Amino acid sequence: MAQSLFSVTAASRQYDEAIEHKINQKTKPLGALGQLESLAMQIARVQYSRESELSHTLVNRTESAGSESSLSATHLPLSITQPTMLVFAADHGIAAYGVSIAPSEVTTQMVHNFMQGGAAINVFCRQMGFDLHVIDCGMLQPISESTGVINQRLGAGTYAMHLQAAMSTAQVHQGFALAKQLVTRHVKAGCNILALGEMGIGNTSAASAVMAALLHVDVDLCVGRGTGIDDVTLIKKSQLINQAIELHRTKLTSAEAILAHLGGFEIVQMTGAILAAAEQKIIVLIDGFIATAAALVAVKLVPQSSDYLVFAHESHEQGHKLMLQQLQATPLLSLGLRLGEGTGAALALPLLQAAVNFYNQMASFKEAGINNVV
Amino acid sequence: MAQSLFSVTAASRQYDEAIEHKINQKTKPLGALGQLESLAMQIARVQYSRESELSHTLVNRTESAGSESSLSATHLPLSITQPTMLVFAADHGIAAYGVSIAPSEVTTQMVHNFMQGGAAINVFCRQMGFDLHVIDCGMLQPISESTGVINQRLGAGTYAMHLQAAMSTAQVHQGFALAKQLVTRHVKAGCNILALGEMGIGNTSAASAVMAALLHVDVDLCVGRGTGIDDVTLIKKSQLINQAIELHRTKLTSAEAILAHLGGFEIVQMTGAILAAAEQKIIVLIDGFIATAAALVAVKLVPQSSDYLVFAHESHEQGHKLMLQQLQATPLLSLGLRLGEGTGAALALPLLQAAVNFYNQMASFKEAGINNVV
Repeated sequence: MAQSLFSVTAASRQYDEAIEHKINQKTKPLGALGQLESLAMQIARVQYSRESELSHTLVNRTESAGSESSLSATHLPLSITQPTMLVFAADHGIAAYGVSIAPSEVTTQMVHNFMQGGAAINVFCRQMGFDLHVIDCGMLQPISESTGVINQRLGAGTYAMHLQAAMSTAQVHQGFALAKQLVTRHVKAGCNILALGEMGIGNTSAASAVMAALLHVDVDLCVGRGTGIDDVTLIKKSQLINQAIELHRTKLTSAEAILAHLGGFEIVQMTGAILAAAEQKIIVLIDGFIATAAALVAVKLVPQSSDYLVFAHESHEQGHKLMLQQLQATPLLSLGLRLGEGTGAALALPLLQAAVNFYNQMASFKEAGINNVV
Repeated sequence: MAQSLFSVTAASRQYDEAIEHKINQKTKPLGALGQLESLAMQIARVQYSRESELSHTLVNRTESAGSESSLSATHLPLSITQPTMLVFAADHGIAAYGVSIAPSEVTTQMVHNFMQGGAAINVFCRQMGFDLHVIDCGMLQPISESTGVINQRLGAGTYAMHLQAAMSTAQVHQGFALAKQLVTRHVKAGCNILALGEMGIGNTSAASAVMAALLHVDVDLCVGRGTGIDDVTLIKKSQLINQAIELHRTKLTSAEAILAHLGGFEIVQMTGAILAAAEQKIIVLIDGFIATAAALVAVKLVPQSSDYLVFAHESHEQGHKLMLQQLQATPLLSLGLRLGEGTGAALALPLLQAAVNFYNQMASFKEAGINNVV
């Protein structure tokens, strides 16, 4: 179903050589900007692919005059326009069974805090120039839309996954469709960098369960202390997730089925948002553990979507490291954050801007009149 | 001599409890902002210490009314004002003996590039809002001051350290004094965050030599490929540094003597700049390998100066990791940069701003009406 809803194609490798040449001619030793160089390569690849699809200009130029004209593609500056942070909030049935440091009411309280501008994600979005939107994907207690929250509710919290399926397949599909509409609207309005964050008491349990089922690894490798649970709670969390996977084992036959049985409303909509961003050929900046689990699902559903993903932050949790390995991802930051909300993604934006800026603005050896050896 | 030129005192720990309390009341799980929290603690400690020294207000308040008023100190917002990037350029006698990928002329060519705005450091300083100044500490070929370069020349390149002392002790002292004047001028004009970068073909050799002599470790643990030298050059580099240390062994009896015999004009002035920033009680942001070597010298000369140091970037070079361990430093970024110029420091500024912003702007649990458990 995801494959039919989202028409994702890989980013074109057609300009790779020209992009690499441009980067290597900058006044710096080869490769001296490290990860910013691979980031610039990825952004350029994605943006030239999008440009090519929209205008056909690049393609025609290249077809008509061969590799020399393919170089001319790299004269197009890269850009970051209307960076948009979408924070997906939802509640989880399993949270009532003692897997978290806080009760589900805190989801709604924190969303209130978001709408009032007092949370970490508000502070960082203001600083970095992100347009912040908060989506209620299904909190237990909704808040008034007059606050500005976007209503994309799939229910009032999921069911407790260790007792029954977290949601129906129809809810998964509805979540995908809503996320696609939302992302497509922002892209049409000019956004070309999307960042994803979340809020939901209990959602590390859902993300761990989804991860364990997708990767076929032991639950103990997937669970962590989330925002700071103690040993007893950690054991309980692991136990309930194992119970959930055992209960649904025969039905976990596809990534969508895994989402339905073990996922969360925010994880579903983040997965949809990633696939929609990939369909639109824009970069999507993935925050922490929960967002990475959504990325894992997205890449399982549509492998080509990985071309569009930039990973912002590597947490100290073993489960996060394992998912990142599976995704062959090297996150930009490692600051020991364990807050979610999209905070890691917000903090990484200046590095994307730096990649864009050095690519656009740095002088080449020729322009600067420097011996091409530094 | 450094101890008499620079009057450095430790940052006060008087407000630590109040600062920690303020951070812990923010709407986030305890410690969930990771390294940004320790960074906010350090910036607050430094800025309250400076404020206290300048106005005596905080001190008096605290003295008169005990710990309750000490809390009131934390009502003062933190700030980043006129962030200033100083890039110190110089040449090295040893560069003529085949230790680098580029000849010494490239130092001057790159400084030309800096003055024309085409280098990576220009791009990143523009993006981050750094005021950039380039200091000629002693390039082989000076350039016109009409370009805007600041003339603080200590000579026309150092002597080759494996043949004689790189410079005289008088030159070290002159470098300290010039750096102090420069930094003090910027602080008086309103700068409260100083960042340090460098340019100088051959300066990883000087930095490695200084490191080996200061830490009494094997030269092989201190040398690396710099901007990308091959095996033969690496062996040559290691050999010449060993030769230099052997030649001067009996004279390497103090950090200043080590600077004079093995250092570089830019390393001397960076050391002076660090001590001047510490004297002024402002944060100083240390870039990569060379700047870290200068920080190591500064901390050996005046241990209290370490309170003011924030390390921007950890490179993949083993020598850099070892110095950072010695300094008990955890850098903010690890992006595989190996360019110098201050690029790592420039890229880290948004993280300092984020630490300042969350400290100033985030709501407390009480303000947001949230159960204090999230």
